[in-house]
This record gives sequence, C-alpha cells and structure tokens, in this order.
Amino acid sequence: MKRIESIKNPKVKEWRKLHKRKDRDLTGTFFIEGFHLVEEGLKDKEMVNEIIITEEVSIPQHWKLDGINLTFVTTEIMKVISETETPQGIAAVCKQKLAVHPLNWSKTLMIDAIQDPGNLGTLIRTADAAGIDGVLLGDGTVDVYNGKTIRASQGSIFHIPIMKGAIGKWLPSFSERKVPVYGTALEGGEPFNKIKSSKDFALIVGNEGSGVQQDLLKNTAANLYIPIYGEAESLNVAIAAGILLYHLRE
Amino acid sequence: MKRIESIKNPKVKEWRKLHKRKDRDLTGTFFIEGFHLVEEGLKDKEMVNEIIITEEVSIPQHWKLDGINLTFVTTEIMKVISETETPQGIAAVCKQKLAVHPLNWSKTLMIDAIQDPGNLGTLIRTADAAGIDGVLLGDGTVDVYNGKTIRASQGSIFHIPIMKGAIGKWLPSFSERKVPVYGTALEGGEPFNKIKSSKDFALIVGNEGSGVQQDLLKNTAANLYIPIYGEAESLNVAIAAGILLYHLRE
Repeated sequence: MKRIESIKNPKVKEWRKLHKRKDRDLTGTFFIEGFHLVEEGLKDKEMVNEIIITEEVSIPQHWKLDGINLTFVTTEIMKVISETETPQGIAAVCKQKLAVHPLNWSKTLMIDAIQDPGNLGTLIRTADAAGIDGVLLGDGTVDVYNGKTIRASQGSIFHIPIMKGAIGKWLPSFSERKVPVYGTALEGGEPFNKIKSSKDFALIVGNEGSGVQQDLLKNTAANLYIPIYGEAESLNVAIAAGILLYHLRE
Repeated sequence: MKRIESIKNPKVKEWRKLHKRKDRDLTGTFFIEGFHLVEEGLKDKEMVNEIIITEEVSIPQHWKLDGINLTFVTTEIMKVISETETPQGIAAVCKQKLAVHPLNWSKTLMIDAIQDPGNLGTLIRTADAAGIDGVLLGDGTVDVYNGKTIRASQGSIFHIPIMKGAIGKWLPSFSERKVPVYGTALEGGEPFNKIKSSKDFALIVGNEGSGVQQDLLKNTAANLYIPIYGEAESLNVAIAAGILLYHLRE
C-alpha cells in the first residue's frame, strides 16, 4: 500500500494525463471515478490496474482487492486528478479491453461518428439494457474511454463487448450470416414500426448533425425513421436508439 | 435601439440574475441563448421581451422584430451574461407562459420530481416529437426555465403546453374523462408491451433516484416497466419515456 502526499509526485501527473485520449491510447489504460464505476470494473478484476483513494473513504468489505495496487492520496490530490465537481474520494486506472470482431453477435448496435461523449455513454447503457450483444464504434466516434462517456454509461462499458472498426468493412459479414442491418434516416426510409422484431439484427445510428453516412445507408436491409408527430426537428440520438432497439428485439 | 458598452450597466446585472430561479420567478421571465432558440421563441412574438446581440452577428432578414427591444452589447458583456462556453452572440429575455389546466389534453406526460435539468429538457423534446399535447410538471421538478433545460429541449419548450401542479390533484380529471393514466415502476408493474396503444393516455415518469411516488402509483390504470435484458441497472428516464410514449401512442 502506497501513500502519496505531494501534488508534485509524478504519479499525479500520470493520472491527470489519462484525461486525454492520446495518453489513454499510448498507455492502453483509462481512468474511472466513483464507487459504482470502480465496483463494476472490479467484476472483471483483470481490468483494474490500480485503485486510488483518500483516507476519508473506506472500501466496502465485500470488494476483493487481492493483487490490485492501492494508493492513498490527499483530498487535494484527488481533486486535482478528478474530472468531477464533487469527487467521491475513489478512482481507478483500468486496462482498455476491446472486442476484436462482431462475428458471434446476434444483436449489434453500430455507431457512426457520434461526437458527444454523453450521448455515446447513454447509447452504451441503453444497448446494455436492451440486451444487445455488442457495440461497434465506427470511425470518427468520440473516444469510449472519455470520462463523460464512462460516467454516462453508468458502468455499462464493463458489461457489453465494445469494438472499434470501419462499419462498412463489417457489413458483408452480417449479410453472410443473414442478419438484417437497419440504417436510420430522417427521410426516405421506412417507419420503424413497419419492421417486425427479430432475434438477430444490427442497427446503425449516426452523427448528431449529419446522421448515418450515405455509403452505409446504401448497404442496409432497410433504413428506418421514427415519425415526428409534433414540432420538434428530431429526437436525441440515444432516445431514437432506445425506441428502435426495444422495438426491433423480440 | 440601445447600445450597452459598460459591464457595470444595471441591465447586465439584471440579465445575469435570470440564471437564478428566484429571479426568474420574481420577474416572470427567462433567458435564452443562440440563434435556434431565439428563432423558436419569436414564433410566438408576445413571448419575447427583448433581444440582446453583439455587433459581430447579424439578424436573419426573415425575422420579424417589430416592437421588440433590441440591445447591442460588447462581446465581453455577452460572455458575462451567457451560460455557455462559446456564446453565439445572441440572447433574449422571454416571458414565462404556463398552461393552467390539462383538461383538453388527450396525450399527457406527467413529470414527478425530475432533478436533472438536461433530463427535463430532453423529456420535453421527446414529448414534442411524440406528439404529446402537454407536459405537467409535478412538485419537486427542476425549473423548466433553467438554461440547461431550455438548451436540452432544443426549442420544444416553445412548442408544447407546459403546466406546473400537483400530479395527484389532477388524476381524478383524467379518470373522469376515461383517459388511462400509466405509472412507471421498476418492479411490480406490467411489461409495457402488454399495453395496447391508444389515442388518449397519460404517462407519469419519476425522479432519477426514487422513481414515481407510491401515492401516485396507487391511483393509476396500470404501472409499466421496461424489461432490462442485460446487466444495466436501469434506463435513463428520458430514454424510458421515449420508448413508452412511442409505444403508447397510436
């Protein structure tokens, strides 16, 4: 068990660096905060490299920490390394762990260039709730290990396989398996409730401003839209995904 | 047309005060920012008291501003009165305008003590998209004129009637009109997809932590839950509302 009291300790700088994507990718790690997230992370113990806590907090007795580095820090240090306004006094460094292919996923959510970290986290939480087998993050999507994404996912990033890749490259493998891939489009598509639910499907949701790329929409079984009955211009992308995933699944 | 160049001008303080609920309620007004929101506000011109712009921006020609006070301010003043990181250079002060009863609403969303301003805004946007006739904000709900709520609503606060009141007090008027009221509950309810869609209904969604009050759940036609198929503990309340509203409406 270590104890760090100086804010100038090199570890403090190292932890802070994990707020940047570049440094997360260089180290293959990411930073999480709060009791709930650390507890979810610990369910797959190989994922947690180290836990950082302040002296004011106590670790729940049922947590199994054998072999995990534990470092005590001052409240001031915790404040400096935290991205939240009121840190809970506990944080952890975890290993990035991505899936390598979607070939055994029967229900898949594909994410084409979502920009907002909160939207991405909520999409992953919603996919988890809907019993989706995995999430494919297409090129141009915000980093899944962004702190805001992790917090919005409410721990679901630890529950559901996530992979990165070019969506277009993987579409043929879905056709070969006879899994229908549905795009989403504001215009020129089919109303979602005309599509029957099924055991296997993939759904592509797109960028907040420009939607799903045209190139992808050309290679789907159908492109779905959710009717807008009022004066709103559109639905938030995570809301749309929730409606579609719960409609499409059996 | 006025011009304000000193940050000490009393108007600057007055505008800033509108970031607090107390001062919004005292003046019966609220503050909005950005081209899209001001444009939506102007669709009901009686709602807009004054428009504040910097010299760098120009007002779209098709906006009709007859009779609306226009004040030019410096970029520095705009920064001070804005709640966003990168102000668009346009803001407005609007009149609060609430509905007084829900007696002619055939589709109603009732909100029981939602705390997060972003969630409330997204709920209003989603209700607007789903063609809901009005939103009843129950006691203990965050202020609908909070800046974050307005921004998350993407202008839908201007599209859909909103009223404040005690939900329990209004439930009998729904029963009298034979409009089924559905509560939402994580446990002890019916799976939502067992309920048939209908022309008239009311849906109650509840607080992010504690859900809908038990007192209300006792007085509903049915309480619905959305099955969780994965390991997520719950869905975000606005996602749940989206799934339920689109399922319940015909």
